[in-house]
Amino acid sequence: MSVRRVGILGGMGPAATADFYTKLIRATPAGRDQEHLPVVIWADPRVPDRSAALLDGGEDPTPVLRRGVAELVRSGCEVLAVPCNTAHAFLAEAIGDAAIDLVSIVEAAAGDAQRAGITKAGLLATAGTAASGLHAEALAVRGVGVELPTEAEQQAVTAVIAAVKAGTVDTEVRSALLAVVDALAARGADGVISACTEVILALDGTAPSLPVIDPAVSLATQVVAAATSPPRANYLRSIG
Amino acid sequence: MSVRRVGILGGMGPAATADFYTKLIRATPAGRDQEHLPVVIWADPRVPDRSAALLDGGEDPTPVLRRGVAELVRSGCEVLAVPCNTAHAFLAEAIGDAAIDLVSIVEAAAGDAQRAGITKAGLLATAGTAASGLHAEALAVRGVGVELPTEAEQQAVTAVIAAVKAGTVDTEVRSALLAVVDALAARGADGVISACTEVILALDGTAPSLPVIDPAVSLATQVVAAATSPPRANYLRSIG
Repeated sequence: MSVRRVGILGGMGPAATADFYTKLIRATPAGRDQEHLPVVIWADPRVPDRSAALLDGGEDPTPVLRRGVAELVRSGCEVLAVPCNTAHAFLAEAIGDAAIDLVSIVEAAAGDAQRAGITKAGLLATAGTAASGLHAEALAVRGVGVELPTEAEQQAVTAVIAAVKAGTVDTEVRSALLAVVDALAARGADGVISACTEVILALDGTAPSLPVIDPAVSLATQVVAAATSPPRANYLRSIG
Repeated sequence: MSVRRVGILGGMGPAATADFYTKLIRATPAGRDQEHLPVVIWADPRVPDRSAALLDGGEDPTPVLRRGVAELVRSGCEVLAVPCNTAHAFLAEAIGDAAIDLVSIVEAAAGDAQRAGITKAGLLATAGTAASGLHAEALAVRGVGVELPTEAEQQAVTAVIAAVKAGTVDTEVRSALLAVVDALAARGADGVISACTEVILALDGTAPSLPVIDPAVSLATQVVAAATSPPRANYLRSIG
């Protein structure tokens, strides 16, 4: 099998990157080391906060992301995965005309939501991702509606994400997250996209009231497909 | 805090690399993304089998390892971690005079065994690692003895490692591994070094009869220390 080297632009956050790499390994049909994909991970956690840039005029993360993309291209990567939903708002500019195929976590998750028969997806994400409208747009193209958290609910989700990044998730944090899922269900959502890799880590071991799409799993599946496919003409940038 | 970029030469196997990255993140004192270490992971799972090279005259993995080290140096990495015990038999040659500090998983584990008060360490490793004598040497320097598995026990350990790499660990595989630990204890071992990152994954959720040193945790702790320290004079190659 001829495979293309996969570049993972990570570190946003580190735990989400390790989680995605684990899911990529699980998604790869391999019986021994040598059958797995060649992967380079560039994890510079010092990328400026993505949500702050989208919401509060914080420092633009694009230059640091662009440098990471360039490093991965230089290392021979032809397929790009970015296991951070919020970063996707900056990727078109960060990638520019670099010769690498982005597999979009946003498109991958929306495709899985549609295939799962979800008609209205609750969105658990950073405030920045929710405000960017990226997921709503990708879902709308597929005829799937979106239910966003209220401002108070969003604050609860944001607190959960910060707790995962700080390694301080506990029962209380998890309960607050499950209450948001219940509220989204009460407003008509029949599924949830946990569009922030930290949210999935917080849901681990819980039993939410709605089916949950894990974009990291969606991305892993599509990355395996892209790595074992020839390059797209003109390096079309979004596969998902 | 001034930190040095960490290069992880991984993919041997991929699951062990993801496991080590997770442990490195946990070992890092950080409350938010930006406080984590900058990391580059070069994971080329197509490195020729290390045990086969040590035992059966299989293809020499050194050139592929050397290429990975060079990629990490080119990416600006100054500290090198290789989460594969067996690969350490080839590292002196693979690193050559590259300007990067290796944190040795073998030295790190031996140091932790000594600090834990172990006087005779059972060794759960690949056949290649056991035959290389790397761990026995590092332990002997610290006054710690070694108890190796018998040939039949080693075959059981080898089967466990292959099962983890193939993703087919089950209760039977785990029981066989625990039986080897019991046998080592009966022969006087008062602790075990699970000197193959796959063995630790197989032990997950079990209750072995001896305390277990996880070299990936030992390595993670020492890597955090090395990344936050200045370079060694003349790039001394082994820290642990």
